[in-house]
Amino acid sequence: MLPTVEWTDEGVKLLDQLQLPATVTYRLCRNYQEVAEGIREMVVRGAPAIGVTAAMGAALGVVQSPARDMAALRQEFAGIRATLAATRPTAVNLFWALERMNQTFEAAAASGDLGEVRRRMREEALAVCAEDIAINRAIGRYGAALLPAAGEVLTHCNAGALATAGYGTALGVIRAAVEDGKALRVLADETRPYLQGARLTAWELQQDGIPTTVITDNMAGHFLHSGRVGAVVVGADRIAANGDVANKIGTYSVAVLAHENGVPFYVAAPLSTLDLSLASGEQIPIEQRAAAEVTHLRGVPITPEGVAVANPAFDVTPNRYVTAIITEAGVARAPYQASLAALAGGARGQSA
Amino acid sequence: MLPTVEWTDEGVKLLDQLQLPATVTYRLCRNYQEVAEGIREMVVRGAPAIGVTAAMGAALGVVQSPARDMAALRQEFAGIRATLAATRPTAVNLFWALERMNQTFEAAAASGDLGEVRRRMREEALAVCAEDIAINRAIGRYGAALLPAAGEVLTHCNAGALATAGYGTALGVIRAAVEDGKALRVLADETRPYLQGARLTAWELQQDGIPTTVITDNMAGHFLHSGRVGAVVVGADRIAANGDVANKIGTYSVAVLAHENGVPFYVAAPLSTLDLSLASGEQIPIEQRAAAEVTHLRGVPITPEGVAVANPAFDVTPNRYVTAIITEAGVARAPYQASLAALAGGARGQSA
Repeated sequence: MLPTVEWTDEGVKLLDQLQLPATVTYRLCRNYQEVAEGIREMVVRGAPAIGVTAAMGAALGVVQSPARDMAALRQEFAGIRATLAATRPTAVNLFWALERMNQTFEAAAASGDLGEVRRRMREEALAVCAEDIAINRAIGRYGAALLPAAGEVLTHCNAGALATAGYGTALGVIRAAVEDGKALRVLADETRPYLQGARLTAWELQQDGIPTTVITDNMAGHFLHSGRVGAVVVGADRIAANGDVANKIGTYSVAVLAHENGVPFYVAAPLSTLDLSLASGEQIPIEQRAAAEVTHLRGVPITPEGVAVANPAFDVTPNRYVTAIITEAGVARAPYQASLAALAGGARGQSA
Repeated sequence: MLPTVEWTDEGVKLLDQLQLPATVTYRLCRNYQEVAEGIREMVVRGAPAIGVTAAMGAALGVVQSPARDMAALRQEFAGIRATLAATRPTAVNLFWALERMNQTFEAAAASGDLGEVRRRMREEALAVCAEDIAINRAIGRYGAALLPAAGEVLTHCNAGALATAGYGTALGVIRAAVEDGKALRVLADETRPYLQGARLTAWELQQDGIPTTVITDNMAGHFLHSGRVGAVVVGADRIAANGDVANKIGTYSVAVLAHENGVPFYVAAPLSTLDLSLASGEQIPIEQRAAAEVTHLRGVPITPEGVAVANPAFDVTPNRYVTAIITEAGVARAPYQASLAALAGGARGQSA
């Protein structure tokens, strides 16, 4: 797979997901403002990839800053973080990455050496990127065991290599299961309005040779009811302390339909997607995106002029529909309040 | 509203629903083969409209036939019926209309007068069309009482004037409720792949001044869960004796999500949509349509080349999710085996 996001001497390069699958091209973001724009416009998307990109944007801003003393650099960095934080509200990995970069900044700033701060920021961003791939491999290993030995697995949106630094979360689980010899076929919801499933998941899995069938979102229930789907696996944009999951709009529907038909529903996400500060998913802010994403498709109008549309980008799946949450530290099951806290605490213990 | 289907001296005129809402244009079908083509290509769609169109196609074929004796005309008419019957498999109104036209043919053929047969066929087709509007008005009256006095009603696909000879079934219920003074707003699922909701329902309701918000199909669950939707009302393509409902793909999902969230789920359909010969919905044939409807949108490709897709045009909603079935003879509730049989028997009694 091609890298989703890459640090280069000229700036941060983003694989342009607005153009896929028709065209494979990179957009070069020459400064942190262009990185923020890339996140806002969804040139890059997917909670872990947004986190990695934000980390790189933060580093780029500090590296390029003309500040000549630490106080000025710190002040400028606050503005850089604010700009990057204002891009998209739902994926918590964005805020997690900015907080991590802030901690790196302060630790390095203690040296009093501006060059050292810039070097450490760049290193940290590269570390966030490399760790993300390792985390996804770990998620894949834990999740692969949960999937059936053969048959169909349904996924929604794109929680793949393109949604991360590489390998993917939900698709990482499927990839790991296939690497283990499981004979899986994938049903990919097209995922309106942005078509992450039809455009991105189908493209990724096609490149890997994993048999994939694209369906419209409203077919998912029909196939879940048919008995041919062995499991659902999706990613997440933010997971509350009680295990409620914010993810791409439509995830809630798939979860209810899986539950109704006795199909296990798995969420695959790094611990950086947990937001234990929120008691439940009701507190997760849901991004409302532009009407044009619904009224137009690849530039072509599909609704009568002047019609009202709604465009919430995410929904929240209550924990009762979630069979398990697969993280790099292990698999959490209900009651999630306890199991997620234990996984998060253990991981903090390991890294401490 | 413009007529969906119209008998003219030159042939059967179909409002071209492939072009809506961008262009309002009619396609003239000069012979029964072109009528069949219009049904197959979905220039006209919606179970009741397909029935009316098939009746007109059958009449047109008989009127235009060069047959010079009754045996030859009868033989040709068998071919006309077979051609029209082979267009689309799921909507039972198609077969109902052809059977009704066959009975008209045989009744008129007893006269031995070819001219009389042709005249009666044309009259019967016009009667089927006129009755359809009257039936929808009756459905509207029965259904309006079931809707809330104010708030949002969700619908899927287009069961409106465009799916019938006029007024609509599901949208007829909404229209009648609004005529009764209810302050309703409509949430219209866009209904991939053919976009009947985004293109047709939004257009119809916009013309009537009924406030409508278009959502992607995968948002329906989110809004049903939000508590803002007071009822769901949809049409049907075929209803089995036990109340299982075949309707546009995605209806099953909406029904399950409504049920899960305590929102009443109503089906509005004429008695000609009942197929009491089928014990359950499992026996209803589901049309599989071309992959291009999923892979392309208004001619623009949205999936990587060569990817597999599925495209079932309908699904079956088990009767346990259906709050009530609204017909022109009254409202049926569970157990449907008894209530539907009673409505159908009563209607037969009335017309006998």
